[in-house]
Amino acid sequence: MKQRPAQVRWEQHTQRPLMALAVLFAVAYAVPIVDTSASKALTSVCTAAEWAVWAAFAADYLVRLGLAERRGEFVRRHWLDLGAVVLPLIQPLRLLRLVSTLLLVGRRARMASQVRLTTYVVGSVVGLLMFGSLAVLSVERDSPDGNIKTLGDAVWWSFTTMTTVGYGDHAPTTGLGRILAVGLMLSGIALLGVVTANIAAWFIARFEMDDVEERRQTEAIQQLTEEVRQLRAEVASLSEQRAQ
Amino acid sequence: MKQRPAQVRWEQHTQRPLMALAVLFAVAYAVPIVDTSASKALTSVCTAAEWAVWAAFAADYLVRLGLAERRGEFVRRHWLDLGAVVLPLIQPLRLLRLVSTLLLVGRRARMASQVRLTTYVVGSVVGLLMFGSLAVLSVERDSPDGNIKTLGDAVWWSFTTMTTVGYGDHAPTTGLGRILAVGLMLSGIALLGVVTANIAAWFIARFEMDDVEERRQTEAIQQLTEEVRQLRAEVASLSEQRAQ
Amino acid sequence: MKQRPAQVRWEQHTQRPLMALAVLFAVAYAVPIVDTSASKALTSVCTAAEWAVWAAFAADYLVRLGLAERRGEFVRRHWLDLGAVVLPLIQPLRLLRLVSTLLLVGRRARMASQVRLTTYVVGSVVGLLMFGSLAVLSVERDSPDGNIKTLGDAVWWSFTTMTTVGYGDHAPTTGLGRILAVGLMLSGIALLGVVTANIAAWFIARFEMDDVEERRQTEAIQQLTEEVRQLRAEVASLSEQRAQ
Amino acid sequence: MKQRPAQVRWEQHTQRPLMALAVLFAVAYAVPIVDTSASKALTSVCTAAEWAVWAAFAADYLVRLGLAERRGEFVRRHWLDLGAVVLPLIQPLRLLRLVSTLLLVGRRARMASQVRLTTYVVGSVVGLLMFGSLAVLSVERDSPDGNIKTLGDAVWWSFTTMTTVGYGDHAPTTGLGRILAVGLMLSGIALLGVVTANIAAWFIARFEMDDVEERRQTEAIQQLTEEVRQLRAEVASLSEQRAQ
Repeated sequence: MKQRPAQVRWEQHTQRPLMALAVLFAVAYAVPIVDTSASKALTSVCTAAEWAVWAAFAADYLVRLGLAERRGEFVRRHWLDLGAVVLPLIQPLRLLRLVSTLLLVGRRARMASQVRLTTYVVGSVVGLLMFGSLAVLSVERDSPDGNIKTLGDAVWWSFTTMTTVGYGDHAPTTGLGRILAVGLMLSGIALLGVVTANIAAWFIARFEMDDVEERRQTEAIQQLTEEVRQLRAEVASLSEQRAQ
Repeated sequence: MKQRPAQVRWEQHTQRPLMALAVLFAVAYAVPIVDTSASKALTSVCTAAEWAVWAAFAADYLVRLGLAERRGEFVRRHWLDLGAVVLPLIQPLRLLRLVSTLLLVGRRARMASQVRLTTYVVGSVVGLLMFGSLAVLSVERDSPDGNIKTLGDAVWWSFTTMTTVGYGDHAPTTGLGRILAVGLMLSGIALLGVVTANIAAWFIARFEMDDVEERRQTEAIQQLTEEVRQLRAEVASLSEQRAQ
Repeated sequence: MKQRPAQVRWEQHTQRPLMALAVLFAVAYAVPIVDTSASKALTSVCTAAEWAVWAAFAADYLVRLGLAERRGEFVRRHWLDLGAVVLPLIQPLRLLRLVSTLLLVGRRARMASQVRLTTYVVGSVVGLLMFGSLAVLSVERDSPDGNIKTLGDAVWWSFTTMTTVGYGDHAPTTGLGRILAVGLMLSGIALLGVVTANIAAWFIARFEMDDVEERRQTEAIQQLTEEVRQLRAEVASLSEQRAQ
Repeated sequence: MKQRPAQVRWEQHTQRPLMALAVLFAVAYAVPIVDTSASKALTSVCTAAEWAVWAAFAADYLVRLGLAERRGEFVRRHWLDLGAVVLPLIQPLRLLRLVSTLLLVGRRARMASQVRLTTYVVGSVVGLLMFGSLAVLSVERDSPDGNIKTLGDAVWWSFTTMTTVGYGDHAPTTGLGRILAVGLMLSGIALLGVVTANIAAWFIARFEMDDVEERRQTEAIQQLTEEVRQLRAEVASLSEQRAQ
């Protein structure tokens, strides 16, 4: 889809403010979970801030939809964004708002052309570790059989899960907690894949430098060029003789 | 083995109906395991459906064998299919029927040329997760020492196994359950390999784009072509002078 | 090191008998561990068989040393083999004899030039799983705190270790058992690496086919060839004109 | 940053003594942890040795800073080293001194141009295993809930963590121990990545050898060269005829 200049300009100008809002969301999400003795007023402020950030990203989606040349194509190409915008309205669950906002942030971040795959994956991994810990903590803390009761345990469990170590000293026991855990596991596999692929690509790029066949080709081309150059000189001298 | 048109046409026409039957098998297999209070009549219907799907795939094998030009070669190349067709007849164990049918489905799916390796592996992984969970549940539920008693536990255990996290909060205790678990583990390693390889190939393809040596070669060849073109012009002018 | 024909011939002729002896060793090693009620006579026969296989491989080493052109270089290049030959003499521990013989078998197998890396690794993995299970079983069975008491448990534990799943329902408790476990873990990492690398190499080989830059080069070379061909025709006609 | 000869010479001459000091540090760090009945005098000697090694590396940093052409750039490029030099002064915690010294050793080792990435990673892994075991042992031994009480347990736990097996029979319970564990897990993922990437690069290098397209190109260039050579001969004979 060719983008209209207006759309491109909008995306460039809103990039930074939206990322700042994403950080605000992280704080607003973390405070009531970490500080269990938080006053009711503070919790309300945080919930309001979460809704505000979600609303800002939803508005960004609608503006981009309005600026798009072919709206049908825009909706088809950003159907996941549409879902993330609509879902929290239907079902005002906190976890769903988290997933929706993260999705919107992630889709928006990917637009920044300077973000490479590796940066994107590392950023996602750190975000997932942080939000995975917080979300599992808020879910498992209320479960009677749960064994993830403090923020420290939750972060520790996130790391053992994402690196696929899985000691089993802490593990989610509720359905929701386990769904979150599966997300962390799959992210861990993706992380491992990106780490390995990066190293492999770097190794292979160095191996390629020493590619024997290519060096032989370069030499063959150089010999050929020399040959042609001498031929031209000969023809030139022939031409000169003719002119005399 | 060169395929006769009749064989190719048969495979194309039966592709979709057979995949629909595979989904039916999945439902028929899942129902009596998930719904433990299922009536005897429902269980019988499901068992009949399982046998019917197996029979359809067995028939497909026999038709393809009949249409094959060289039957000896066809049997040698599809010996695994033959085993999958014959085994359930000898030993009417439910798990064996599952493995046989999955094998027949998988071998048939691979024939569809448009199915790439990645799609195939992802499809296999999802199928293995689903059937692994169900099969382990049906095996471990009846074991007195077992700790996988609900569908939720079984699915959770499948994920922790396939991602090689392995918390150990749930683990099979029977021999059959453990054999299934080993299958899931090996599939998990294959999944990890495919994920990594995909990312690596994508990285390397991008690295190759920037291959300095090759670009230099292309430039050298283009310069050389220019050189020869000028030489030709010179010879042409020489030829014209001669003609005057 | 250039090999004398005599050495090559010896290695080719002894390849199959030595591999057969390796299988015999596997059986002789497994029997007294699996069959705990084995009679004393049977155990003695097995121990004798183990020593005989070790002796055969030691003799093979000595013959190859005798046939080698430069013996100093042969010893330096096969110092691991020398250790494997000498060690069991000093310390007649069963586990050491196992490691020594496996080492000799592995070093010898690598000599068969038709054995590719993948085959070698897969063979090693299967061998390690089998011998790892047996060795850990024989070590942990006698430990009072041990939890690996049957062959089934040992094999199950080997798989969970090598695939890095690590449920923790069974784990070695003795120092010797843990050293064996570390070997299995490292082999598992190597296995995962080989699986991934194989898939990646296959993917990349397919990607390379579509290499844009190379296709452009081939086209450039073809254009150049056409250009030169026409030049030659022109020169030839010039030459003919001259001859008239 | 172009290096002044003085700086290069300093780095070459101090390479070996500094690595010897690194080994001394390892011994001084290990002794009081492994030998719990160590006399107070011995512990003091070891602490002094640790400080001395740290001081030597700090001095090395300062000398290199003094020899650097552009000091501002040197500080910016080696900011991690600066932190490692300053930190132990502010907070004389033993673990911090360990991390600081390891960091300084690692940064210095990387300077040795003959050290390849693989050697570097393998060296780091072995170092991390050793220091990880010792550090976790010293931290967890004093924790009432801890289950890592002997050196054997600590080494065993390090291996199960770094290979991502994670049985869970031993796991850190203190915050500090868990931070160390996360370091080991991430190193394990890097190790796995390097192993896989090495094998993949080796596989692909062998695949490249058989690159059909490139061989075809080389042949095309060689044929073309032959063509041009014959053309030159023809032009030369034409030139000779003309001269007559």
